[in-house]
Amino acid sequence: MSIVNVESVKTYLMDLQDRIIAGLEQLDGGTFRSDAWEKPPGATLGGGGRLRIIEDSTVFERAGVAFSHVRGSKLPPSATAARPELAGRGFEAMGVSLVLHPRNPYVPTVHMNVRCFVAHPAVQSGSIAQPSLGAGDEGNDGAGAQSKPIWWFGGGMDLTPYYGNDEDCRHFHATCKASLAPFGAETHPKYKQWCDEYFFLKHRNEPRGIGGIFFDDLMQPDFATCFALMQSVGDHFLPAYAPIVERRRDTAWGERERDFQAYRRGRYVEFNLVFDRGTLFGLQSGGRTESILMSMPPAVKWRYDWHPAAGSPEAVLYENYLKARDWV
Amino acid sequence: MSIVNVESVKTYLMDLQDRIIAGLEQLDGGTFRSDAWEKPPGATLGGGGRLRIIEDSTVFERAGVAFSHVRGSKLPPSATAARPELAGRGFEAMGVSLVLHPRNPYVPTVHMNVRCFVAHPAVQSGSIAQPSLGAGDEGNDGAGAQSKPIWWFGGGMDLTPYYGNDEDCRHFHATCKASLAPFGAETHPKYKQWCDEYFFLKHRNEPRGIGGIFFDDLMQPDFATCFALMQSVGDHFLPAYAPIVERRRDTAWGERERDFQAYRRGRYVEFNLVFDRGTLFGLQSGGRTESILMSMPPAVKWRYDWHPAAGSPEAVLYENYLKARDWV
Repeated sequence: MSIVNVESVKTYLMDLQDRIIAGLEQLDGGTFRSDAWEKPPGATLGGGGRLRIIEDSTVFERAGVAFSHVRGSKLPPSATAARPELAGRGFEAMGVSLVLHPRNPYVPTVHMNVRCFVAHPAVQSGSIAQPSLGAGDEGNDGAGAQSKPIWWFGGGMDLTPYYGNDEDCRHFHATCKASLAPFGAETHPKYKQWCDEYFFLKHRNEPRGIGGIFFDDLMQPDFATCFALMQSVGDHFLPAYAPIVERRRDTAWGERERDFQAYRRGRYVEFNLVFDRGTLFGLQSGGRTESILMSMPPAVKWRYDWHPAAGSPEAVLYENYLKARDWV
Repeated sequence: MSIVNVESVKTYLMDLQDRIIAGLEQLDGGTFRSDAWEKPPGATLGGGGRLRIIEDSTVFERAGVAFSHVRGSKLPPSATAARPELAGRGFEAMGVSLVLHPRNPYVPTVHMNVRCFVAHPAVQSGSIAQPSLGAGDEGNDGAGAQSKPIWWFGGGMDLTPYYGNDEDCRHFHATCKASLAPFGAETHPKYKQWCDEYFFLKHRNEPRGIGGIFFDDLMQPDFATCFALMQSVGDHFLPAYAPIVERRRDTAWGERERDFQAYRRGRYVEFNLVFDRGTLFGLQSGGRTESILMSMPPAVKWRYDWHPAAGSPEAVLYENYLKARDWV
């Protein structure tokens, strides 16, 4: 049995946010602004967070990296699809979430999230002053689990190019795979497939991008292993994405590429507002709207029933990249 | 007891679409394209429709007017909030829905919808070949309603200005009120309030616009009266909106106004994709995505935690117009 220490998760997450910001500022040359926020304890949601965001900069047109730690009196159904019996319980959630929208259409948009949830034993009506889990609590193991807090981890990262590139796709997926290598050979194929299934626009019959990895409800075999897996995913984000930015940031683009980027960003909006559980969880649980919707692209276009011309570079995205493929 | 005649509803709706298009083409000077579509009967949804749409024209940057008549094997929960016991039944739905996004930021965006639903007596698994209601069926009245089709009407219209104008607001609401005058003095206040409550972005604590009227689950006192009310709402759309376009279409605007319009259009996207039951019904029931998402604005911007400068014309929108008010 491993020791459950939620404070150490929080320490890791805040440090991860700092390291990612340092890496992104080096890529961009600009400085992210920092917005700390706090919600007073209330009937719905309390807690706080620190949003780091940059807009209209050199590499990034809009890029946000959010840390948050919230406590609520009622876990919304979107928080755990696998264990609906936990809905309605008091909960804590902490995580780092990022969405980066580069200006250059040849640099892909990327998303990464790592998170830890704790569902408290019973609904305490109107109360959110649940004690945090401290070091030494046994967590999910052993008898009497119904009367104890239940914790789980989730996360992943996925890439959304506008103009696909095999080298980038292989690199991104290889890095995702490396992040999961210490956790068993079956883990990467499982989380890769989960990502393909999760980031899928049912109403378009189209994946959001070229995938990556996604996991949720991770609570086996023990706290230490699950926490280590989450850390490995977080630590592999910069190595997965930064080399792609460096390779593509100087590719020349014109109005045609910008226009296609704006059109494709519409799919990103559709996915996040209609399907994404993280977004819906945030909006349903009374989260901070401006932090949640940092994922929205800066400039987006919709047009009716548009399709790329056959043989065009835009058509290649649909034909070669917007399908689930084995990249490594 | 009045005669239930769903065919006459269909005839009315198709004619309404034609009349609205004629009025809008006169306002715009351009020609709407026409896209008829049909889905073969399948497990989820069959039926068809006719979408009329114009993009990048003089007055309208993107404007769609859709007629559709669909049949499905399983009524999704979004279709009727008031009667959840009908969820899962076979159904028919027909309606006209429009969203008009003008180019000039001084001309408001507008939405109108009129619709008729029929829930069939029992779920026929995998079957969508339910017979349509024909003339003479008794509908909701009388004994044995559980074994009979149940029909209801819904609809409404609402206005979303970027730069508010009292004259326009009063005219729009007065026309909405006139459309409901024959149906009892209590009808307009009720549907006006319903609209204020429905077109509300909970995560922003902000109404979508200046409201109008909204109704759903209308089945009393009888089919003929409900149908007449729906017709009156549909018939009052052009008189409610066209004079506003005529008054504001020549107002000069610059980049500042366009930018604010693009920012505010983000709220329209958020409402339609997160909250709008019509949109969710369409996407959940396997409707035609390009027809449903004709409501998306042509060009949209998001930016972080933006607020208009105090005393600016943009601030006036928030202070004077984005609150529920009695306009008539």
